Amino acid sequence: MTNTLTFLPGLEGVIATETSISLLDTELGQIIIKGYDLIELSKTKGYLDIVHLLMENTLPSDTEKAGVADKLKKEYGVPEGVTKVLQALPKETHPMDALRTGISALAGYDKEIDQHTLAINKKRAYELLGKIPEIIANSFHILQEEEQIHPLKELSYSANFLYMITGRKPTELEESIFDQSLLLYSEHEMPNSTFTARVIASTFSDLYGALTGAVASLKGYLHGGANEAVMNMLLEAGSVDAFELLLEKRLRDKEKIMGFGHRVYMKKMDPRALVMKDALKELCALKGDDLLYRMCEAGETIMEREKGLYPNLDYYAAPVYWMLGIPIPLYTPIFFGSRTVGLCAHVIEQHENNRLYRPRVHYIGERHSNHSTGEL
Amino acid sequence: MTNTLTFLPGLEGVIATETSISLLDTELGQIIIKGYDLIELSKTKGYLDIVHLLMENTLPSDTEKAGVADKLKKEYGVPEGVTKVLQALPKETHPMDALRTGISALAGYDKEIDQHTLAINKKRAYELLGKIPEIIANSFHILQEEEQIHPLKELSYSANFLYMITGRKPTELEESIFDQSLLLYSEHEMPNSTFTARVIASTFSDLYGALTGAVASLKGYLHGGANEAVMNMLLEAGSVDAFELLLEKRLRDKEKIMGFGHRVYMKKMDPRALVMKDALKELCALKGDDLLYRMCEAGETIMEREKGLYPNLDYYAAPVYWMLGIPIPLYTPIFFGSRTVGLCAHVIEQHENNRLYRPRVHYIGERHSNHSTGEL
Ligand SMILES: CC(C)(COP(=O)(O)OP(=O)(O)OC[C@H]1O[C@@H](n2cnc3c(N)ncnc32)[C@H](O)[C@@H]1OP(=O)(O)O)[C@@H](O)C(=O)NCCC(=O)NCCS
Ligand SMILES: CC(C)(COP(=O)(O)OP(=O)(O)OC[C@H]1O[C@@H](n2cnc3c(N)ncnc32)[C@H](O)[C@@H]1OP(=O)(O)O)[C@@H](O)C(=O)NCCC(=O)NCCS
Repeated sequence: MTNTLTFLPGLEGVIATETSISLLDTELGQIIIKGYDLIELSKTKGYLDIVHLLMENTLPSDTEKAGVADKLKKEYGVPEGVTKVLQALPKETHPMDALRTGISALAGYDKEIDQHTLAINKKRAYELLGKIPEIIANSFHILQEEEQIHPLKELSYSANFLYMITGRKPTELEESIFDQSLLLYSEHEMPNSTFTARVIASTFSDLYGALTGAVASLKGYLHGGANEAVMNMLLEAGSVDAFELLLEKRLRDKEKIMGFGHRVYMKKMDPRALVMKDALKELCALKGDDLLYRMCEAGETIMEREKGLYPNLDYYAAPVYWMLGIPIPLYTPIFFGSRTVGLCAHVIEQHENNRLYRPRVHYIGERHSNHSTGEL
Repeated sequence: MTNTLTFLPGLEGVIATETSISLLDTELGQIIIKGYDLIELSKTKGYLDIVHLLMENTLPSDTEKAGVADKLKKEYGVPEGVTKVLQALPKETHPMDALRTGISALAGYDKEIDQHTLAINKKRAYELLGKIPEIIANSFHILQEEEQIHPLKELSYSANFLYMITGRKPTELEESIFDQSLLLYSEHEMPNSTFTARVIASTFSDLYGALTGAVASLKGYLHGGANEAVMNMLLEAGSVDAFELLLEKRLRDKEKIMGFGHRVYMKKMDPRALVMKDALKELCALKGDDLLYRMCEAGETIMEREKGLYPNLDYYAAPVYWMLGIPIPLYTPIFFGSRTVGLCAHVIEQHENNRLYRPRVHYIGERHSNHSTGEL
């Protein structure tokens, strides 16, 4: 109880919780997920391995992995009432706001909503993992006044997610790169959205509420909203030269450049960004057009030279999603979809060993005497 | 930067932000709101005075107060799409979940949703203050398959709020006690829901998202959910003797008693609870039935004797709301409705002087070597 008077803006460096879920180990340069380095995992494992790891604490055997796939398939299908909710939203609704509303509405179908035991929370988490990709894809189609697209039995979880977005069955390479991006986004210690979910859960509010808050958090451009901003910037420029000029101008104007910097990595490249950079290279080679890759590399050079800042995952995930034919407004919702599993793991851990989050403040406002209050 | 390694569960005592909005001054026993003691204010001022104080930084003149009332009246009316959203929810939906969904849906109508300037945030706050009481009342009526009730021109803000809930124009005493309860709930430093709203807002996400997260937080029984739990406990007992037995049994079973304790007051009675205790006495006298008052006092005595714990606001707000004829499931939504103004003030302050909330963790999980990862 020694530090009650130190104020660290943004809680920088403050320990918010004990956790056995994940750690950004800046010394070893590793993202530890349940004991494993995420980057190592990304070389040989897929998204459903991570789902098993985060929900069941171990990397799955082949049978166990197939079991997770089956479990999620059984949860496919969005209740009609939730679809009606999405249809009632104004067409100008931001896709993250539609997603937030859809998840919020889903709570009404949970007959055990007031229970937060480990077993019920886990069951609930699988249900949400099964349904959220479809809510993401179809909330967008509904806002766009397009036909809804429902999952296909023969496709994998990740392939279905991508298929429901684009309406086109992905190639093997597309499926594997999309799956890898989900894996990379799956869990990342204590970013703002995860913190939001744990703070909410600590009142013994439920998983739906915690996820609803996390969508709201992730929407902000200092967090998940950055991947969309990156792509818009790349498109606005359209060439290497123009991109360089655009970045230099924005830096002169003291603007923050989206896709760069990170509270924890700050002076080093986010290792997840490197994996997506390779994926971008592969997609560019296949298409015989490496413009986006060259633009991104040029941007990297400028930002390192001018600001000593390095790309975060969003910087390279954005052009990868573009090459996969994903509409830009879905980049942040997809980030949320892949992070759902990490968020669920954190809410479960919070409920299992809870203490209400309730910090204090430094009051820097005025003080009037009671007397003057009485007189007014 | 000295305290990065101290872990304080629930961030107890940690300073989350600088603020000029409010402070729980435990030394002077005051709840300071923009320089004034809330309890003093509750003696001579009404809820709209506090709205002006929180939004415009000063206690209003009579003209200014009338201006606030007019401003809010202009915002009455819930968009048809939001009503359709509420109608699409399953009838089993928890009222807090319906409220959360309604506020989330409202975001789609904001044409300046991506802007967070002071002027736009303030305008947005007044709009939300105008609409939220109606969303609270009518989401409940819709779930109950009752007729919706819309505000009446001739009633004050608080009277309308209560009228839309009960369908009956309140007496002067009822209006003034309800208004006083809104005032007492309006703002309270950094409880979990306010913290949630600020954490979300710090990504430069919007006010709707921040409020959505705050509803989710407030729903939990360690926070706003407590007022409903208190009333259910009182009704379950039904008499002074039975209430004493119930409390004693729950204490023996090591259960937490809702309506008692507070992170910050802990060893002292929440001064807001005292004001509501007086209101309860008045309502009981009027009805010629003081059973609830006697039960509450008996509970107070037991909790002080057995645990050294004192009532918080929820303990006495609950029976007051019961005497006002408010359905129990609306107690927590009303708490949210009155707190909306405090939440808006905090989100605005956060946006005006922002740093992303992004704390760290103590990792207590396993570490596997990379090698073993490779082998799995
Ligand atoms: C992620 C981020 C919010 C972390 O920020 P933080 O730890 O709060 O760091 P701050 O915003 O306090 O920045 C520290 C300094 O670096 C600068 N900086 C940080 N990120 C920057 C960026 N992307 N572009 C330009 N300057 C940046 C800040 O301007 C500040 O400089 P100053 O000290 O001269 O004022 C921040 O890097 C950022 O806003 N990045 C862009 C948004 C983004 O890509 N978000 C996705 C993250 S996964
Ligand atoms: C409000 C509250 C969450 C603050 O809690 P906190 O600062 O996190 O305190 P803790 O829960 O760690 O409690 C500290 C000790 O007091 C006890 N305690 C606190 N509130 C209690 C209550 N209402 N009934 C019984 N015991 C209580 C705890 O059991 C704990 O005892 P222990 O140290 O022997 O385990 C807590 O008092 C509570 O749960 N109250 C009931 C819910 C309620 O009324 N909430 C509305 C608040 S506005």
